[in-house]
Amino acid sequence: MRCTIELMDYAKLALEKHKELKGKITIQPRDIVDSKEKLSTYYSPGVGAVSSYVAKHPEETRDYTWLNNNVAVVSDGSAVLGLGNIGPQGALPVMEGKAMLFKGFANIDAVPIVLDVHTADEIVAAVKAIAPSFGGINLEDIAAPLCFEIEERLKADLSIPVMHDDQHGTAIVTLAGLINATKITGRELKDCKIVLVGAGAAGVAIAKLIHLYAGAAIVTVDSKGIVTRDRTDLNTEKQILAQFNKDQQGGTLTDAVKDADVFIGVSQAGLLTADMIKTMADQPIIFAMANPVPEIMPDVAKEAGAAIVATGRSDFPNQVNNSLAFPGIFRGALDHGVKAITDQHKIAAAEAIAALVAEPTVDKIIPGPFDDGVVEAVAHVIR
Amino acid sequence: MRCTIELMDYAKLALEKHKELKGKITIQPRDIVDSKEKLSTYYSPGVGAVSSYVAKHPEETRDYTWLNNNVAVVSDGSAVLGLGNIGPQGALPVMEGKAMLFKGFANIDAVPIVLDVHTADEIVAAVKAIAPSFGGINLEDIAAPLCFEIEERLKADLSIPVMHDDQHGTAIVTLAGLINATKITGRELKDCKIVLVGAGAAGVAIAKLIHLYAGAAIVTVDSKGIVTRDRTDLNTEKQILAQFNKDQQGGTLTDAVKDADVFIGVSQAGLLTADMIKTMADQPIIFAMANPVPEIMPDVAKEAGAAIVATGRSDFPNQVNNSLAFPGIFRGALDHGVKAITDQHKIAAAEAIAALVAEPTVDKIIPGPFDDGVVEAVAHVIR
Repeated sequence: MRCTIELMDYAKLALEKHKELKGKITIQPRDIVDSKEKLSTYYSPGVGAVSSYVAKHPEETRDYTWLNNNVAVVSDGSAVLGLGNIGPQGALPVMEGKAMLFKGFANIDAVPIVLDVHTADEIVAAVKAIAPSFGGINLEDIAAPLCFEIEERLKADLSIPVMHDDQHGTAIVTLAGLINATKITGRELKDCKIVLVGAGAAGVAIAKLIHLYAGAAIVTVDSKGIVTRDRTDLNTEKQILAQFNKDQQGGTLTDAVKDADVFIGVSQAGLLTADMIKTMADQPIIFAMANPVPEIMPDVAKEAGAAIVATGRSDFPNQVNNSLAFPGIFRGALDHGVKAITDQHKIAAAEAIAALVAEPTVDKIIPGPFDDGVVEAVAHVIR
Repeated sequence: MRCTIELMDYAKLALEKHKELKGKITIQPRDIVDSKEKLSTYYSPGVGAVSSYVAKHPEETRDYTWLNNNVAVVSDGSAVLGLGNIGPQGALPVMEGKAMLFKGFANIDAVPIVLDVHTADEIVAAVKAIAPSFGGINLEDIAAPLCFEIEERLKADLSIPVMHDDQHGTAIVTLAGLINATKITGRELKDCKIVLVGAGAAGVAIAKLIHLYAGAAIVTVDSKGIVTRDRTDLNTEKQILAQFNKDQQGGTLTDAVKDADVFIGVSQAGLLTADMIKTMADQPIIFAMANPVPEIMPDVAKEAGAAIVATGRSDFPNQVNNSLAFPGIFRGALDHGVKAITDQHKIAAAEAIAALVAEPTVDKIIPGPFDDGVVEAVAHVIR
């Protein structure tokens, strides 16, 4: 199978490259301290005047330190990529990679912080403790449902932008893709029947953002079937998703997809079959975003009638990639002194990303990760 | 007064330079992510193989991430330079400066972490939580006596090097200077009567290290007078210092310095007078390290009979500067996989620093901060 070979190639290459680099990021001073004068300016005694000043004017700290350009990329390693709970050591290579992307895409100084604590109370306490060191907090790879509580509490307690990227980055780019996909297929998003599979971090955020944006009916399916109000096993977030299920029809994924206009998968490989697609509405839109292997392979989906297929992968068209969102979100927040990322910011970011594709086609509903102007367009609306 | 004008100049220059730079450090990726292939190698999906591997072999994380070369510079801002408890914002410019020095002197990637918590339990919890992100922890500018408990608990709980630099950096360089100063004046350190003024972080560590190294008698003086066993107001650390006072004579600083061979000040400006020096033993050694204004100015001390004067300042000879110690200590610890900085490491570092001055003179008992070979010599003995 083509994808398996590719994954194995990347695994081997990645292990080699990581061992060769021994660290994907490094700290660079903005000036070389090579004289007593510089030592006395950047460090004692000169720096004392700067410390005294910002202690008296804490809101100006960002003008005298790297706070105006840095974020922490924080994970407890409880939901790393598709690997599950592999702990802080396992999370570190991913967080370093994210720091590379922050710098490469948005020139932001991102510091990987992996945590050796795993309850909501402990994670919130640790992040709050280190918060004065950073201009923003990017939460990453923290398992649901803990991630919801952690993000909510940190947003309430901190006056710097906090965003759990697995939730909102994915939701923003998904919405951007949907805006253009519905346009191409002549639909209004508000009138679509949308089926969402996977009610983890990404799924919950996607459902909430689409509902907020379009008021659309969304049928969510988790491992127990369709999420409805009468189920007694729902956490707080799933109870909210249950409200989006307009007719409260229960059942399985097969039941859910019948006549649906849009399938959104953030679940696992192979869940969606060609036969299911054939029961969907005409010209269905398929976002099969399970990583690394999607819910259905694009060629199979197309053959079964899908009008548009998006995945999380770079080797197929329409990659729903968080790197379209998070760099610009934090760039804008840092540059414009934004203290919290709101739902309005997320919608504005999705619209900005969608608008970057002047003439959307079935193979180009969203920009590619290296397309020009993405960070600037997103940053522009975060203010 | 010359020093005041200089300090004012540096204050003005420092404020200007800091505002111009807007951050003294930045993150640099070790490779530019400018292709889908690199994105798939350094980030998803390739990085997943690295994460899986180090999760299974956590001790090898340092070979695949920047752990082999990074440290956190951690402060709660409770004792910043001579400014006291000015909080995390106030501490940040100093910690960034320290990160510049770590890079400039020892090529170590140091991340400033300022904490918004201030009890020992909270600080220990926060540092332990973020510890998997770093190859070492440099504690900085944390007030005594909390700093002693915090360092001790972190050393006990973590298997990476932890060092409170205000304590041990100063103690190591002071011992290095004393080794050469006693040599020049024909003394044996073990036979000296040593007076130490200031029983904060630096004072306690200096007394302990000198006592361990030479078994010398040390009379410590704090704001209440000479520290003796019969005082009832001593914290745990001062109780240890009381043991070093051989004849348990009480009294004031004036009483203490009588016939003393060595004065070590880590207290405040102007505490030592010319008249006091005249009551000391012949050719006394004066380490007047209060910052930025020493316990006695070098010219005044010399005129009163001091054979050798050291201060904390770069504009006088014999600057006792932590930057002679901490870069090499952490460089050695990181390079040699050292998991704890021991007393033996500190003594070896002091001896290595002293040995760098081939022929010590009254104006050159220790290397200058920019002398060649200091980091290498210190790193060499930390193994």
